[in-house]
Amino acid sequence: MSDLGIINSQFLEIATPDAPFVFRSGEVLEHAQIAYETFGELNEDRSNAILLFHAFSGSQHAAGINPGVPGVEFWTQECVTGWWEPFIGSDKALDTDRYFIICANYLGGCYGSTGPSSIDPATGQRYGSRFPHVTFADIVRSQVMLLDSLRIDRLLAVVGPSTGGLGAITFATTHPHRVSKVIPIATGVKTTVLNRIILLEQILAIENDPRFRGGDYYESGVPETGLALARMISHKTFVHLNAIENRASRDLIHPDERFSWYQVHDHVESYMLHQGKKFTNRFDANTYLRICEAWSRFDPVRESGATDSDALFARSHQAEHQYLIFSIEEDYCFYPDEQQALVDALKRADVPHLFFTVHSEKGHDSFLLEPDLYTPHIQAMLGNATKALVGG
Amino acid sequence: MSDLGIINSQFLEIATPDAPFVFRSGEVLEHAQIAYETFGELNEDRSNAILLFHAFSGSQHAAGINPGVPGVEFWTQECVTGWWEPFIGSDKALDTDRYFIICANYLGGCYGSTGPSSIDPATGQRYGSRFPHVTFADIVRSQVMLLDSLRIDRLLAVVGPSTGGLGAITFATTHPHRVSKVIPIATGVKTTVLNRIILLEQILAIENDPRFRGGDYYESGVPETGLALARMISHKTFVHLNAIENRASRDLIHPDERFSWYQVHDHVESYMLHQGKKFTNRFDANTYLRICEAWSRFDPVRESGATDSDALFARSHQAEHQYLIFSIEEDYCFYPDEQQALVDALKRADVPHLFFTVHSEKGHDSFLLEPDLYTPHIQAMLGNATKALVGG
Repeated sequence: MSDLGIINSQFLEIATPDAPFVFRSGEVLEHAQIAYETFGELNEDRSNAILLFHAFSGSQHAAGINPGVPGVEFWTQECVTGWWEPFIGSDKALDTDRYFIICANYLGGCYGSTGPSSIDPATGQRYGSRFPHVTFADIVRSQVMLLDSLRIDRLLAVVGPSTGGLGAITFATTHPHRVSKVIPIATGVKTTVLNRIILLEQILAIENDPRFRGGDYYESGVPETGLALARMISHKTFVHLNAIENRASRDLIHPDERFSWYQVHDHVESYMLHQGKKFTNRFDANTYLRICEAWSRFDPVRESGATDSDALFARSHQAEHQYLIFSIEEDYCFYPDEQQALVDALKRADVPHLFFTVHSEKGHDSFLLEPDLYTPHIQAMLGNATKALVGG
Repeated sequence: MSDLGIINSQFLEIATPDAPFVFRSGEVLEHAQIAYETFGELNEDRSNAILLFHAFSGSQHAAGINPGVPGVEFWTQECVTGWWEPFIGSDKALDTDRYFIICANYLGGCYGSTGPSSIDPATGQRYGSRFPHVTFADIVRSQVMLLDSLRIDRLLAVVGPSTGGLGAITFATTHPHRVSKVIPIATGVKTTVLNRIILLEQILAIENDPRFRGGDYYESGVPETGLALARMISHKTFVHLNAIENRASRDLIHPDERFSWYQVHDHVESYMLHQGKKFTNRFDANTYLRICEAWSRFDPVRESGATDSDALFARSHQAEHQYLIFSIEEDYCFYPDEQQALVDALKRADVPHLFFTVHSEKGHDSFLLEPDLYTPHIQAMLGNATKALVGG
């Protein structure tokens, strides 16, 4: 049981017919909300707030117990405990005795923020294929609206692991004066060729499912097999291959009905299929596609209208940002080279930073599983005991 | 133009109703043929023969010009020049002035050997889903029948790059007394977890295509999109990522009709899609699945009935094999660790061997593109100038 107890999601309206939300694509929503949760207390001068961006398949529910979110059909048992529970609470990396932590579901998500599976009040139908294309700039802007509503002018920190780091970096570079410390964990500053190839495979896996129907599948049945394949393609990048082998060897082999011709004979095959299938109960394929696209197109230089990466981080220098960056050794999702590219850009722009490589046998998933590897540095950075900062 | 000129494929019947071909699975073909080509001349004492195994999507047509194979619908312009043209000919790695080189299409293939797209004489229909499951032991046995028909008792060498190496190693370990030298290039001795995961993704990509219909799609339309996705998944492992970026940057972006929702914006995406689509014209999805399965299940210890890897290579020691093994640096298809595992097994069994790592910017595809990196060592090994051999 979490020491934070029950946490309920809250909602903020971010679009009305009079003040619609305009996406970077030019597409518009006249009705939209953001689902969010908060942990800890906002102090009087509103200076202790931390905005946390969740990873690809995460949600606003970062810590504590949330048995369900009204109207959210994808909230399975796996969602009940917060996704970053080991990192949020009394004396944890994000200390709820000292800080006010905010986490919001991505705009376009499927856990309470308006997304493709939401019902369009104008038609009474789910948006499906008509839901806009989403960028990290849109996701960030929706969360800036949330900060405005909470009357928080400048965050103590923005934190983001994995794809959440794309949100954190976009926030820091598009709204530099609204944050002091930036903590990207196992993330990237620009998509690589390999990212884009693997994301394209996942997109095609879903689009090629006969049940996808362009995204309008809510009445006719979800593209479950395509979504499972997409998740399998990404899952191998999250977990160290040795860990997959170890986990798989404890599983039973279930000859699988998913295949018409091929027979599963192998623990690894069975484990991967199970990972893929399990996921389809708790995620919407259209949301999956929106996030794949946002990641594939992620480019903070373009998002912020800067001329180049140096101009981008010159803003961080002006805004007196301090960065704390983590790499995970043998991370096959966001390779250590990607964090190195961020560090190189910060060095060129003379932005104070600390950079650590975590040595782990877990691969990318270390950021969910091994709080001891991250907590002391995060606490030190947030608590100002940061004499070791490089540059600035 | 090739200096070997026109090369025509030849055919050998390997199954009749009186002498059917029985697969390791127990399944049977009562009619089957192998398509093969030969290069150079067999000498009088029949001692200069080299058997070459092609890679996944290759064919019997290893060198010279072959404008077409009767009855083979997948023979596109890409197939006309031999797949190992830079390595076979006068003074090349496999010197046609000295050696008699044989290359046969895998049993289960789509370039002239009997495969799922062949017509079953018993029914007048294509085999489709009824075609047996294939292992490398079956492929090797079909080619041993070819050697028998050519009255070749002992090969000078067996050579196999990439998945062809799985054939070469299976040949050497199941028929140790029929070969002297073994030359596996950028291949493996046992499938890895990553191999099996990536192969499973490809299998699921094809099976999930609505047109797959369990493999009986020849009348109704081929599972083109699934096959294209499978090829994209594997293609990224063949080509170095930097090379993909370079090649892609010269391509035009074609917004692609394959997608209903997603819009291709990016050179890399466009390049990968083009690679996938192009492939569907020249390969059969059912053959693709058979080879995925043969690779995924590849295990020469099991294939040969040995108790373990040491017992397996003890046979190579007894048969006085000499091995020449190549690794390619930054090979994402068969990682250098996989060749190291073969070398370690040879060392334990005291089998003479030479082992080289090729430093290339091409990735796995180096074995097709850079003859200069391989030729001197192959010539030396075949010509007996092999004083440097380790062990034995």
